[in-house]
Amino acid sequence: MKMLFGGIEAGGTKFVCGVSDEQLQIIERVSFPTTTPAETMAQVLTFFDQYQGQLQGIGVGSFGPIDIKENSATYGYITSTPKLPWQQYDFVGTLKAAYDLPIAWTTDVNAACYGEYVAGHGQGLESVIYYTIGTGVGGGAVVQGEFLAGFSHPEMGHMLMQPYPDDDFAGNCPFHGNCLEGLAAGPAIEKRLGVKAQTLAPKEPFWKIEADYLAQCVYNTTLMYAPEQIILGGGVMKQPQLLPLVKAAFLKKLQGYVAIPAIDEYLKTPALGDNAGLTGCLALAKKSADSPVSSTSVL
Amino acid sequence: MKMLFGGIEAGGTKFVCGVSDEQLQIIERVSFPTTTPAETMAQVLTFFDQYQGQLQGIGVGSFGPIDIKENSATYGYITSTPKLPWQQYDFVGTLKAAYDLPIAWTTDVNAACYGEYVAGHGQGLESVIYYTIGTGVGGGAVVQGEFLAGFSHPEMGHMLMQPYPDDDFAGNCPFHGNCLEGLAAGPAIEKRLGVKAQTLAPKEPFWKIEADYLAQCVYNTTLMYAPEQIILGGGVMKQPQLLPLVKAAFLKKLQGYVAIPAIDEYLKTPALGDNAGLTGCLALAKKSADSPVSSTSVL
Repeated sequence: MKMLFGGIEAGGTKFVCGVSDEQLQIIERVSFPTTTPAETMAQVLTFFDQYQGQLQGIGVGSFGPIDIKENSATYGYITSTPKLPWQQYDFVGTLKAAYDLPIAWTTDVNAACYGEYVAGHGQGLESVIYYTIGTGVGGGAVVQGEFLAGFSHPEMGHMLMQPYPDDDFAGNCPFHGNCLEGLAAGPAIEKRLGVKAQTLAPKEPFWKIEADYLAQCVYNTTLMYAPEQIILGGGVMKQPQLLPLVKAAFLKKLQGYVAIPAIDEYLKTPALGDNAGLTGCLALAKKSADSPVSSTSVL
Repeated sequence: MKMLFGGIEAGGTKFVCGVSDEQLQIIERVSFPTTTPAETMAQVLTFFDQYQGQLQGIGVGSFGPIDIKENSATYGYITSTPKLPWQQYDFVGTLKAAYDLPIAWTTDVNAACYGEYVAGHGQGLESVIYYTIGTGVGGGAVVQGEFLAGFSHPEMGHMLMQPYPDDDFAGNCPFHGNCLEGLAAGPAIEKRLGVKAQTLAPKEPFWKIEADYLAQCVYNTTLMYAPEQIILGGGVMKQPQLLPLVKAAFLKKLQGYVAIPAIDEYLKTPALGDNAGLTGCLALAKKSADSPVSSTSVL
């Protein structure tokens, strides 16, 4: 009998489920839209039911905010999400009721960060910060081998920004207006320019503005975590002209104030591409099966 | 024979040295200006020589930047400081040459953070962030019981700020202009207003601007670390009107986006006042004497 691991990358727009072997090689991968818990979770269970008896654990990286405090009555829940059908949804409990398996539980961005940390650019490092810049901006953090956490998980996608010179765009974050997500996520670009980011020419002057905001993110991340590596993923980062612009703007802002690692090693797009999240979930499943006592420690 | 511990709070303007018992009760405390390594360290050694044979370890919290990488050839050095006589100064090596004792080594702000974590407001918590707002702005971080570190220690005093509405003050950070330190530290206030911060009346409108910048700091700290507690110390925070203004501005910026702990427990001035740094150094000395293998783990 094969030892298999399950992963659920539970995003706000789609779920990706997969099963891997012990080397984290993906055997099967399916995807379906995020609708209601009843409908979407039925598809999740139908998928994993095929592998009953072989699965050793399931790792979940979920959209949030989520409850990650193990001693909390609502541990394993999606909490105050604006996606109303999922508010106060007991995600881990639902899986536990269906399968007698260790379930690892973290945010979608932490899972992607963990994927890069164990199987991508971050291999051999101890601290990696991962951002996704897509329909929102989210951040995950593995610091000294553990997911960074305190009263909850970080939400660094909403850090504050210095307006780009003469930029009067008010941003579109419903909470904070011109925070990072409100200025740099895909919907912010579309609101600002009236067209989708992926339709903009690489030489469009706007990319310097986008790069400036992402450079501020990298700058604050550098000074606040001093991480060994920062990875920028998500749909917006698929513009190949963007990373070099971010690097240049970041170095100009930093002014050599701290001695960072070599920039091309320090700041990267994901080695695992769109598989960073699912790979992280599978790796967390494997880890939780190996040491089921703690699901938050990732060493 | 008594078991005693030594602490050195090595600040950029003055050194504070102290000796405590096992309960961290301070037995003797001295202070002298930071001049040259030859002169200042002679005073340090003269002080601790009195306690030779009783000291079990010495904890150092130093101005920086400093080298905290244990496998580095320059571990224990002050590195690229603008205080020229101290550049590339082998602080830990000098102490090791004089005393055959475990030497704990971290930044001055990490030491203050650790003091509050073990003996101040942070007792019983797992993650505490400490800022000092004085002649500069520095930050220290204990996260999940360890000092936060990666390629180096954090330097969050230089995070970027959104300009306060209609504020055209360019800031005075020589590296970044209007970063947090460039806008909110004592010298920035003096440059902006032409008078020292401590001479300003509590009702002076400027305090709202200062509170806004510190609220941005607390906001970014909340979203990036999700800590259990944030402590604001240093000379500027001795203005009693400031903390309530910071709390109000922070809550307005946060817009309830994440569920923080109760604000009066979450955001505080130091319980240990000006002794946070020395107490942290003494606690680190005690810890390094108890488990001399690692000087960076603080659990």
